[in-house]
Amino acid sequence: MAESIEMLLEEKKYSEAAARVKEMNPADAAVLLGELEATKVPILFRLLPKEMASEVFAYMESEAQETLIQAFSDRELGEVMEQLYLDDAVDMIEEMPANVVKRILRHVDADTRTMINQVLNYPEDSAGSIMTIEYVDLKAGMTVEQAFERIRATGVEKETIYTCYVTDSQRKLEGIVTVKDLLLAPKDEIIRNIMETNIKFVYTYTDQEETASMLSHYDFLAMPVVDAEERLVGIVTVDDAIDVLQEEATEDIEKMAAISPSDKPYMKTGVFATWKKRVPWLLILMVSATFTSAIIGSYESALAASVVLTNFIPMLMDTGGNSGSQSSITIIRSLSLGEIRFADVPRILLKECAVALLCGGTLAVGAFIKLMLIDRVTIPVALVVSVTLAVVVLVANIVGATLPMLAKRLGFDPTVMASPFITTIVDAVALMLYFNIAKLLLGI
Amino acid sequence: MAESIEMLLEEKKYSEAAARVKEMNPADAAVLLGELEATKVPILFRLLPKEMASEVFAYMESEAQETLIQAFSDRELGEVMEQLYLDDAVDMIEEMPANVVKRILRHVDADTRTMINQVLNYPEDSAGSIMTIEYVDLKAGMTVEQAFERIRATGVEKETIYTCYVTDSQRKLEGIVTVKDLLLAPKDEIIRNIMETNIKFVYTYTDQEETASMLSHYDFLAMPVVDAEERLVGIVTVDDAIDVLQEEATEDIEKMAAISPSDKPYMKTGVFATWKKRVPWLLILMVSATFTSAIIGSYESALAASVVLTNFIPMLMDTGGNSGSQSSITIIRSLSLGEIRFADVPRILLKECAVALLCGGTLAVGAFIKLMLIDRVTIPVALVVSVTLAVVVLVANIVGATLPMLAKRLGFDPTVMASPFITTIVDAVALMLYFNIAKLLLGI
Repeated sequence: MAESIEMLLEEKKYSEAAARVKEMNPADAAVLLGELEATKVPILFRLLPKEMASEVFAYMESEAQETLIQAFSDRELGEVMEQLYLDDAVDMIEEMPANVVKRILRHVDADTRTMINQVLNYPEDSAGSIMTIEYVDLKAGMTVEQAFERIRATGVEKETIYTCYVTDSQRKLEGIVTVKDLLLAPKDEIIRNIMETNIKFVYTYTDQEETASMLSHYDFLAMPVVDAEERLVGIVTVDDAIDVLQEEATEDIEKMAAISPSDKPYMKTGVFATWKKRVPWLLILMVSATFTSAIIGSYESALAASVVLTNFIPMLMDTGGNSGSQSSITIIRSLSLGEIRFADVPRILLKECAVALLCGGTLAVGAFIKLMLIDRVTIPVALVVSVTLAVVVLVANIVGATLPMLAKRLGFDPTVMASPFITTIVDAVALMLYFNIAKLLLGI
Repeated sequence: MAESIEMLLEEKKYSEAAARVKEMNPADAAVLLGELEATKVPILFRLLPKEMASEVFAYMESEAQETLIQAFSDRELGEVMEQLYLDDAVDMIEEMPANVVKRILRHVDADTRTMINQVLNYPEDSAGSIMTIEYVDLKAGMTVEQAFERIRATGVEKETIYTCYVTDSQRKLEGIVTVKDLLLAPKDEIIRNIMETNIKFVYTYTDQEETASMLSHYDFLAMPVVDAEERLVGIVTVDDAIDVLQEEATEDIEKMAAISPSDKPYMKTGVFATWKKRVPWLLILMVSATFTSAIIGSYESALAASVVLTNFIPMLMDTGGNSGSQSSITIIRSLSLGEIRFADVPRILLKECAVALLCGGTLAVGAFIKLMLIDRVTIPVALVVSVTLAVVVLVANIVGATLPMLAKRLGFDPTVMASPFITTIVDAVALMLYFNIAKLLLGI
């Protein structure tokens, strides 16, 4: 698609190119613009009708947005900014370098500038920073017909009109009424009588993930955001909530793999940035793996007495690490979905121990049979390896389940307690168990 | 909260208990019912107004739903079923044992039964299985006023009325019009003139994750679902799409930790079920870790010549495994968010190699210093360990980035290529590299 549009532009068949793009959904047109040669983007962008152009702009990646802004005349910049919804404008500005931000703020009207600055001041990852301040507000004394008049008069520039917010003279939220309620009510009904007064809301400083989870819990299309005095200041819409939930899942996954999370997609992150996200964790984990070297070193005489024991070190470590990951990752995900709480610790531990005994037992029997038939080691060695395996799985599950809960309790991010850390701890424990069980059973 | 309601019920203060619950949001009331003693649930449920009762029912966990159904009289069951939205009814039925399903289907009217059976027949995890068939359909020839009349007449029982679907006489989807468009248009405007004809839709057999991603990509409130003849059969609403995205993220995370995914929350999964989800992967991974034993066994003479080499096996294996996870998990998540494609393989490999050289280099220098100053090994041994470290990180990143892409290309689920499998492969490669580099540099 991108190639054929580029062809048309090169052949100066502008109206044909424009016609093709105009047919597209704005989200798809933004993807297309992202794939075009940088020089062709402004040409095509200028061919689009104003309203579609700014909608497409809102969907574009921030790098492509920056390129476009650099190419814009001041008048063009002003026009696009005027058409953007405030939350999209703020999202965009947050990603721009300082000089571009200055230029943008110079070319919006004073009111918009004040509002942008206000939203920009909310802490990162707070409800305030992702909300839009464009919502439909009604008064409790209005009739349904008056409400519809207000929606018709102000609705064009609102991102969502389907949930309307009823506020008093101090801008305090009194109630919520949906367009569905309004449509199904008689025209002369008073809003006060049909509005929902049991209101769920978040504060500007509420974490964005909590906001998105609440919206999803209540199946809302938008979540109202209030300030410290409980005055309505904005709403978080469902499309932004979905993005937050997706971002947070990616962040959790990255942290579980011991990568510092980033907001940028993989292909947009440079080599140095990627290195910086990964190397600190690798270094920390490498240094902590040093304990394992020390442990092996201190049992050198035992190893020398039975060299064959070395062969099973990796298998024991891997199995311990895998069991530990299974427990820790299950617990971490359940914590982040709000399925378990600290009070559940005893039940969780009991369950993990039961599962560990079953898993460890199965593995020990499997390993014993394999050691005797395939590796053809002596019965005592096979016993040492199998018994260690069962104990390691038990320890791994307990460590894997406890550490994330403990981290959460102490106010840390439980995700950091995922497989790499658990593996490092379990490895050290596994080695010590292995050598001590060997000493006991083999008498070395 | 649950305790105080239980108290009220025990003291037979029914109206006070009911009043408290009636004030709650239905989603919260469902959580509360889930926390009550099983015997108290039907009592409280019967105290709720019919409409709220069925809304609360839809939000409840399937176990609690089953308990309630067992307690229902036939009339009560019929009433609740009548009030439920079809997609909630189907969700509920899918989790019930066969005898309960039979009883439910006996107590709904014939039309509903036909519709439920139809939706139940769509493949699991398809758009058809999560859609609702209750949507507002309009005709292209209607005026805006007629459209509003139709919405008012049929809207009460529709889950969402904000996106209306314009169909022709064969039920083929001709266009889409939102209530916002309708509100902002003159009353005598014809729908044909204001409807959007560039329609995005999915088929009943489209994967639910793809459906949810498309809905999120286009910021839709509902995604239309058509059959093989492109006739409109239902819609997937945004709240269900959010649930799908959350479930799929959990599934990906579980698979990355080598756990067979399940639909149930952790606390609801029994010990045996958990064991069955975890042990096959542990066994497979344990058996594949056998290669490492074989490798160590075959280099026994080299190890005997330089026993100190054993000490660094765990550190090398762990670091390789950690680097491999970092690459593989980044790639897997990017694949599932649709950020990268198979055509990007050369660029990805180039980037992963560059990052690996930087990370590996940093780690090698760090390890060399530590080996000389703290472990006080000889320079050749320190060199062997550091060089191996750098090469292992390179191999780990290449393996970690390639395998998920390859799995995807071959039609497998790339998530299975996450850390545990990568670790097993990288471990084997790391050991072979280590011993060969040792042979080369130490001349053993």
